Amino acid sequence: MALDRVKALVFDVFGTVVDWRGSIAREAEAFARRNGLKLDGERFALDWRALYQPAMDKVRKGQLGFVKLDLLHRMNLDELLARHGIAGLPEAEIAHLNEAWHRLDPWPDAVPGLTRLRDRYILGTMSNGNVRLMVDMAKHAGLPWDVILGAEVARAYKPDPTTYLTGVEYLSMQPAEVMLVAAHNGDLLAARKCGLATGFVGRPYEYGAAQTRDTKAEHDFDIVADSFVDLADKLGC
Amino acid sequence: MALDRVKALVFDVFGTVVDWRGSIAREAEAFARRNGLKLDGERFALDWRALYQPAMDKVRKGQLGFVKLDLLHRMNLDELLARHGIAGLPEAEIAHLNEAWHRLDPWPDAVPGLTRLRDRYILGTMSNGNVRLMVDMAKHAGLPWDVILGAEVARAYKPDPTTYLTGVEYLSMQPAEVMLVAAHNGDLLAARKCGLATGFVGRPYEYGAAQTRDTKAEHDFDIVADSFVDLADKLGC
Repeated sequence: MALDRVKALVFDVFGTVVDWRGSIAREAEAFARRNGLKLDGERFALDWRALYQPAMDKVRKGQLGFVKLDLLHRMNLDELLARHGIAGLPEAEIAHLNEAWHRLDPWPDAVPGLTRLRDRYILGTMSNGNVRLMVDMAKHAGLPWDVILGAEVARAYKPDPTTYLTGVEYLSMQPAEVMLVAAHNGDLLAARKCGLATGFVGRPYEYGAAQTRDTKAEHDFDIVADSFVDLADKLGC
Repeated sequence: MALDRVKALVFDVFGTVVDWRGSIAREAEAFARRNGLKLDGERFALDWRALYQPAMDKVRKGQLGFVKLDLLHRMNLDELLARHGIAGLPEAEIAHLNEAWHRLDPWPDAVPGLTRLRDRYILGTMSNGNVRLMVDMAKHAGLPWDVILGAEVARAYKPDPTTYLTGVEYLSMQPAEVMLVAAHNGDLLAARKCGLATGFVGRPYEYGAAQTRDTKAEHDFDIVADSFVDLADKLGC
C-alpha cells in the first residue's frame, strides 16, 4: 500500500492508546477500599474485560439493538458484582466505577507520539467506545484527537466493516487514504479488508506479563512499530 | 435556565466562530488573480453565501436526500460561476476555491476564548458544515474542539431539531446540560425549543457594515456576550 496517500490515522484506543488493565485495576481497588470490600484489582479488570466481546457480540448478531458501550460496560459490571456477591452499594458508587473507562491512562509513548503525528495527519479515534467516553478520556489523558469516529457514529461494533467505512465516509476520503493503527491483528485484518492502510503498534503487556495473543504482528501490515514514537519516526514525522 | 447544569458548549461556526465573509472574499480574489479574471471578492462571498439557505432547504423539505455541505457549496459555486460567465477553468482550481470554506479564519477572540472555556466545558461544533470541513478548519484555525457534532452526524440541517438532539445524544447528556453558542437568533430559538441552554455572541459585522439582522440578541437568552472572551468571563472561566 502506498503510504504517501495516507492523510488520516485512526486509532483503536483500548489497549492501543491507553492501558485499560492498569487503570481499571487501580480504580477497582480504590472502589473496594471506599466500600470496605476486598478485591484483586488486576483480576477484576481482566474479568470485566472478558465480558466485553460477548456483550458486543449480542449487538453484532442482532440479538440486541445498538447500545452505547457505556451501557454494555454497566451490564457487565452488574454481572461481575453479582458474581462477587457485592450488593446494596449506592448507585453513585457503581456509576463512578463504570465511568472508570472514561479515565484510562495513556501508555507513556501515546501523547508524545500523537503530538508529532498530528502535524501531518488528521488523527481520529476508531474505537468501540462511545463518543462521550472518548471525549472524557481525551480530556483526562490529553489525547489530541481531531475527530471522534468509531462504533457509536456508525451504530456498529468493530470488526463490522460498517464501523471502518462510516469513519472513512465522515473523513470524505478513500479507504486507502486512512490508516488504522491498532495493537490487535484481527482489528487490522478487518480494516485491511475494507481497503484501509494498516499500522501495528505492539502492546505485549496489554493483558499482563502472561499475554499470549497479539504479542506481535502476524501479517505484513503496512507499518509495524513498537510505540507511537516509533510510529512517528517510521512515518517521518 | 440553571447555567450550573451546563457541561458542554456547542457552537454554531460560520459567522459565530469564523469570519466566512472576509476569508471567502480573499480566496475569491486570489482565485480571480490566478485565473486572469476580475471579481469583487466581498460581493462574491455574499452571493455565494446567499445560496446557502436555499440549498439546505432542498434537504430540509425532502426534495434532496441528505448530502454534505461540501457538495451543496459546490453546486452553489457552479451556479455562481455560470452567472459570472466563468467557464473552462481546470477542475483543480474550482475544487480549491470550493474548499476555501475549510480554510476560514477565526474572529480574533475565538481561539483565546475557546482555550479558556475548554478547561471547564466539553467544546463541540454544532454546525451545518460537514465533518471533514470542520476538521480541516480546526487544524487551519487552531480551534480546540473536543468533538465534531452537527448536521452530517445527524443527517439533518439546522434548525431541524434532529441536529441539536442528535448532538445531545452523542454527548450522553440532557438537553439542559448543553448550551448552544451562536450569533444568530433563529438558531438559538430552535435550540431552546429542544431544551438546550442558549448563549448569544454578537457578530454585528458578519455580513459587513450594512448588516441589519442579528445585530443583537432579540430574546432573553441565558447569556449574551460580545465576544468569546466576554463569554468566558461571564461563565467565570
